[in-house]
Amino acid sequence: MKKVIVSSMVIGLFITLIARLPVEAQAEPLSSWNDGEAKKSIVDFVEKVTTKGGQDFVPPAERIAVFDNDGTLWAEQPMYVQIVFALQRVKVLAPEHPEWKDKQPFKDVLEGDMKAVIAGGKHALQELMMATHAGNTTEEFSQIVKDWLATARHPKTGRPYTEMVYQPMLEVLTYLRENGFKTYITSGGGIEFMRPWTESIYGIPPEQVIGSSIKTKFELRDSTPVLVRLPELNFYDDKAGKPVAINQHIGRRPIAAFGNSDGDLQMLQWTAAGEGPRFCLYVHHTDAEREWAYDRESHIGKLDKGLDEAHEKGWTVVDMKKDWNRIFSFDSTKTPADIDLQKLIGK
Amino acid sequence: MKKVIVSSMVIGLFITLIARLPVEAQAEPLSSWNDGEAKKSIVDFVEKVTTKGGQDFVPPAERIAVFDNDGTLWAEQPMYVQIVFALQRVKVLAPEHPEWKDKQPFKDVLEGDMKAVIAGGKHALQELMMATHAGNTTEEFSQIVKDWLATARHPKTGRPYTEMVYQPMLEVLTYLRENGFKTYITSGGGIEFMRPWTESIYGIPPEQVIGSSIKTKFELRDSTPVLVRLPELNFYDDKAGKPVAINQHIGRRPIAAFGNSDGDLQMLQWTAAGEGPRFCLYVHHTDAEREWAYDRESHIGKLDKGLDEAHEKGWTVVDMKKDWNRIFSFDSTKTPADIDLQKLIGK
Repeated sequence: MKKVIVSSMVIGLFITLIARLPVEAQAEPLSSWNDGEAKKSIVDFVEKVTTKGGQDFVPPAERIAVFDNDGTLWAEQPMYVQIVFALQRVKVLAPEHPEWKDKQPFKDVLEGDMKAVIAGGKHALQELMMATHAGNTTEEFSQIVKDWLATARHPKTGRPYTEMVYQPMLEVLTYLRENGFKTYITSGGGIEFMRPWTESIYGIPPEQVIGSSIKTKFELRDSTPVLVRLPELNFYDDKAGKPVAINQHIGRRPIAAFGNSDGDLQMLQWTAAGEGPRFCLYVHHTDAEREWAYDRESHIGKLDKGLDEAHEKGWTVVDMKKDWNRIFSFDSTKTPADIDLQKLIGK
Repeated sequence: MKKVIVSSMVIGLFITLIARLPVEAQAEPLSSWNDGEAKKSIVDFVEKVTTKGGQDFVPPAERIAVFDNDGTLWAEQPMYVQIVFALQRVKVLAPEHPEWKDKQPFKDVLEGDMKAVIAGGKHALQELMMATHAGNTTEEFSQIVKDWLATARHPKTGRPYTEMVYQPMLEVLTYLRENGFKTYITSGGGIEFMRPWTESIYGIPPEQVIGSSIKTKFELRDSTPVLVRLPELNFYDDKAGKPVAINQHIGRRPIAAFGNSDGDLQMLQWTAAGEGPRFCLYVHHTDAEREWAYDRESHIGKLDKGLDEAHEKGWTVVDMKKDWNRIFSFDSTKTPADIDLQKLIGK
């Protein structure tokens, strides 16, 4: 009888301990980060705002963190993923548009003349985006994106684009959420292009995705309501648009912001200017071998003014090459945690 | 020693039981609702979608419920609260605008000629809204709204507008949240007019408020970033605009929608048309004594087509007079819970 009571107590204690573990607990919160100033700045900030009774304590409801997507959470080289999608979609849709064979910028795309497409500039790009992103319902478009991502492969690694996400940033997202943060995406990319996959890849649900958008229209089709995507820009969520969109969607000023380009500068400025503890971070692409190295002169993800302002204001600048011991989850680089595990299972 | 062990077990059991209670547990979840079809339909729906293993089970992440505000969560008679705010604000701002004395529609407002103001129609109203809602920063405007609500009083009851909220609907909000729902507002009213108070009054945080909006612009003022409110409509969140805004903000289709007018019809249609269990409810204003009685002919909160469609499709229609034993929290009507409590404390 005594034995039974003691066993119950042990089981009870075990259950209590298990129940106290955070659901998504990571063995080592930021294991793909090398020890250094960048990692330390993240941990210090999180400890500061979560220390109850501390002067920098922030209530969980106000722990809002915003993340740019392209170049901050996943690779944006050699071309924004959504533009690759648009160009490939021109080819898929071409049979329905025989006129495209003789009409720019579609002709260039169909002939595979990428230089000419790029030379067409913003106007050509916008025309391509509207032709490939509108004309369907929101649900149809979501399915098109999912189907495309299931088969499309990155030209450098041959991996699905959804594997081209930065392992250290996934760890930051999880670490913040474990500490009561709500994590948002604030991207120049299309809101409806991201939502179909951000929950499974980043753990970010659709309602926490902010992005550029085209207009939609409510219609009854045979008495079934649908939202039809129109070829007209609704909002361009870049540069000075980012704080505007953050205010529109969230209605609170973030306390932490993560970006990688001048397109994120106003978002970081807006975040930094709030009262109380603030955290701003730029991912600086410095690793030409494992990823890409680019900043001030790049045509994609240009980081120039932002880099100066980050240094001036003491924001965290991540040196990818130095600060990240692993970039993608498929990197062969072993983390200390991996190596320990190998030892443990004796192989 | 044995006694100590048993005590530990009892305490352990007690802690386990306490830990299982929902944080905001209500003694009686919908105590301001009379027993009847309306109340039963809410409870049945919630039990259906939360029963694990049941064929209608909905995962918590997809338990999205949207609520209209004016006339659904708080009183909209004799005039939308935000319009009262705008008219009173014209008087506050008049000294800075001497030209308003001779300029319509401001002249009518300053002379207190409400009939003439109403006769001015939508165009006059829009001019008044822009003049009173723009020209400040988002933070300034938020403070103006808070200050106004602190002193403004409802003309019928003499109560602050934030007390003119429907007690039965507050109970629905709490009941849904206790059952894992995320509750959103989707109002034709201004998003920035609601956010300063929805969290304290409804328990709905700013990021779950959707509404009409004017454009804002990011600016650096003496190197401090601000968002300036512009006198230009951004989005009108009414009628066919509601499903559009829901999709833009949430990116998921709600499984439950609550409204009171034809302005909510498309939101209810959009909600009802999704796959799986759905719940749509109209608040029908039928109580001329405790609140107001209006529907098909009303100039505010007209409920005509929506009422027909609700009956046709079997949506829940709340008969305020019959279904609610209490309308406002300050109503003297005792609920059964109150009466029992009186007995308990012997007075």
